[in-house]
Amino acid sequence: MLNFTFYNPTKVLFGKGCIASVTDELPLKGKILLTYGGGSIKKNGVYDQAKKALAGREVLEFSGIEPNPKYETLMKAVEIGRKEQVDFLLAVGGGSVVDATKFIAAAIPFADEDPWSLLHGAPVKTAVPMGCILTLPATGSESNSGAVISHEGKKQKRFFGSPLCFPQFAALDPETTFTLDKRQTVNGIVDAYVHVLEQYLTYPVNNPLQDRFAEGILLTLIEEGPKVMKDPNDYDARANVMWCCTMALNGLIGSGVPHDWATHMIGHELTAIYGLDHAQTLAVVLPGILKHQLIPKNEKLNQYCRRIWNLQDPVAAIDATETFFRELGMKTKLTEYGISKGLEEVGERLAEKGYALGEHQDILPGHVTPILETRL
Amino acid sequence: MLNFTFYNPTKVLFGKGCIASVTDELPLKGKILLTYGGGSIKKNGVYDQAKKALAGREVLEFSGIEPNPKYETLMKAVEIGRKEQVDFLLAVGGGSVVDATKFIAAAIPFADEDPWSLLHGAPVKTAVPMGCILTLPATGSESNSGAVISHEGKKQKRFFGSPLCFPQFAALDPETTFTLDKRQTVNGIVDAYVHVLEQYLTYPVNNPLQDRFAEGILLTLIEEGPKVMKDPNDYDARANVMWCCTMALNGLIGSGVPHDWATHMIGHELTAIYGLDHAQTLAVVLPGILKHQLIPKNEKLNQYCRRIWNLQDPVAAIDATETFFRELGMKTKLTEYGISKGLEEVGERLAEKGYALGEHQDILPGHVTPILETRL
Repeated sequence: MLNFTFYNPTKVLFGKGCIASVTDELPLKGKILLTYGGGSIKKNGVYDQAKKALAGREVLEFSGIEPNPKYETLMKAVEIGRKEQVDFLLAVGGGSVVDATKFIAAAIPFADEDPWSLLHGAPVKTAVPMGCILTLPATGSESNSGAVISHEGKKQKRFFGSPLCFPQFAALDPETTFTLDKRQTVNGIVDAYVHVLEQYLTYPVNNPLQDRFAEGILLTLIEEGPKVMKDPNDYDARANVMWCCTMALNGLIGSGVPHDWATHMIGHELTAIYGLDHAQTLAVVLPGILKHQLIPKNEKLNQYCRRIWNLQDPVAAIDATETFFRELGMKTKLTEYGISKGLEEVGERLAEKGYALGEHQDILPGHVTPILETRL
Repeated sequence: MLNFTFYNPTKVLFGKGCIASVTDELPLKGKILLTYGGGSIKKNGVYDQAKKALAGREVLEFSGIEPNPKYETLMKAVEIGRKEQVDFLLAVGGGSVVDATKFIAAAIPFADEDPWSLLHGAPVKTAVPMGCILTLPATGSESNSGAVISHEGKKQKRFFGSPLCFPQFAALDPETTFTLDKRQTVNGIVDAYVHVLEQYLTYPVNNPLQDRFAEGILLTLIEEGPKVMKDPNDYDARANVMWCCTMALNGLIGSGVPHDWATHMIGHELTAIYGLDHAQTLAVVLPGILKHQLIPKNEKLNQYCRRIWNLQDPVAAIDATETFFRELGMKTKLTEYGISKGLEEVGERLAEKGYALGEHQDILPGHVTPILETRL
């Protein structure tokens, strides 16, 4: 087992009706900035539930946070936060809204420097406290300390994180996910599945409990995912998927093991260049990366193959993974998204950043375009 | 899935050499009270490592905390804490020392009332902050908010807990466990195993991820436990057992599922009356409880049987569990501990408390003596 530090102070409120109890977690005094996206929460009743929990507080609102939240948009919220001196942020929405709100929380007090530098490693010194009500299970952002922000002008998608950016609480009511459409639902399942693989499919370090936790999430997603696709109002299936998504990226299964994240890094470029949904990029890239890394990932691929798919051949397990995604309704080939050329740009952008990807840093920018060509 | 709240803010520092980094977690100013047990930490070098991490701080010491820590002993530490106005407590030892220190932390500011009332449901309003360095993996106390305290005069063993009693940090260096003797090591493995079963072997609520997490801990203990018994200096096996013990009772696997705890409640009486080690009582009581509850626990027992022991018959799985304990070196029969009569007292004491035990509250005090008679 590798040495590790595990810290996750987010209080998770989980289950039917839990948004009502958010009121007990919110400060009684001060200004609260409610942040959300395009307004779906006004259609599905979550906005009303949030407002009820906020009753008696001074509340401001900032809406219009887009998927792959844009720096340019968020800086408007930062301005409001500074001008109004807000004391708490309440994010209501999916991972993009939560990620966005973490950035707003860190950028409000980051007044002496350019906040974009937070996306280039400048440390968060302080952050406005925040909590969230999650409506789209996928990214795990509701109980971790990281966020991914895009800069439209620079066509960049970058990560930042700080222990100061953990949501204080996360309210997860599976009923709020009944109204998600198929694309959002599939995206969430695939995102969580790949999050697990990024922390599991590397090389063994004698950490059997972490392996079993990771495998538990994978098996549950394989079992519960199709149920959700079949019946969007299946409460237990929605709850199980939602809980899997949180556990996939709250730091637990990644403790004491090597990490990969090559699929994510390449996927971020595909989103930045072509505008694909985050999970779509993962479904496209993952099989290519795994087949390219058959030898360095041999031992864990064999374990994955046996324990998850009851198969003997790693390639068959990679194909089974892709079939699982496709049967959920996810397209896994670049041409299915209308992309058939210009793939050199992905490698070039990674080369500019000087990236060497994967748990062995052996996936070089020069490898990426050929890998993507297998995914046409 | 049942609704739940999951909150665990303890920062876990895990691995070889991690005690050195405790220095970064300790307050720089104020008085720190170092609490420990009978002095084994002076023999195995942990005391010296702790003192090094404490360098530059004002440190007081309180030693002599016994296994099944006694209220009478702890009140002496409470007096010191009040008189010296300590600002932080650092527990160094096993679950008993950590439990004891939680009580000391809550009792120091609980000055207007009798602190024993904390063990009878009086709420903790404030507590001195604390952290811990764990040397005996077993109870999970290092990253949960509960504690069990015994009153020698009253011959009682009672539980209390509060979110204010989470250790701020827990340093877990598996190397500190190399010097544990066989009895301590076996106790820890059995304690963790039964902690899992208390939260897993109840009835299904469609929570497959929690089931798989619980099963992951059980399988890892079954695999790694014998390795530790064979080679006490096997770092990875020690690390895996240590991590299992923490995960068995940090609130995670118990979230969203029913709980049993009948074995623990009966076991506490056996410790209070006969002085058996906590884990010894669990090993004695568990098989009796499970065989008594074959019908209400039928579905989960069948799952346990298939997934953990690859068997078809629940009774065979209960026997396999007992054999696992025995092969680790744990005695599982009352007569092996010199107890052959007077078992009525256990039922009588539970009756006095008005307990109805188990996930269905269907194990009544009148059932307990006959159950124990099957364990002679």
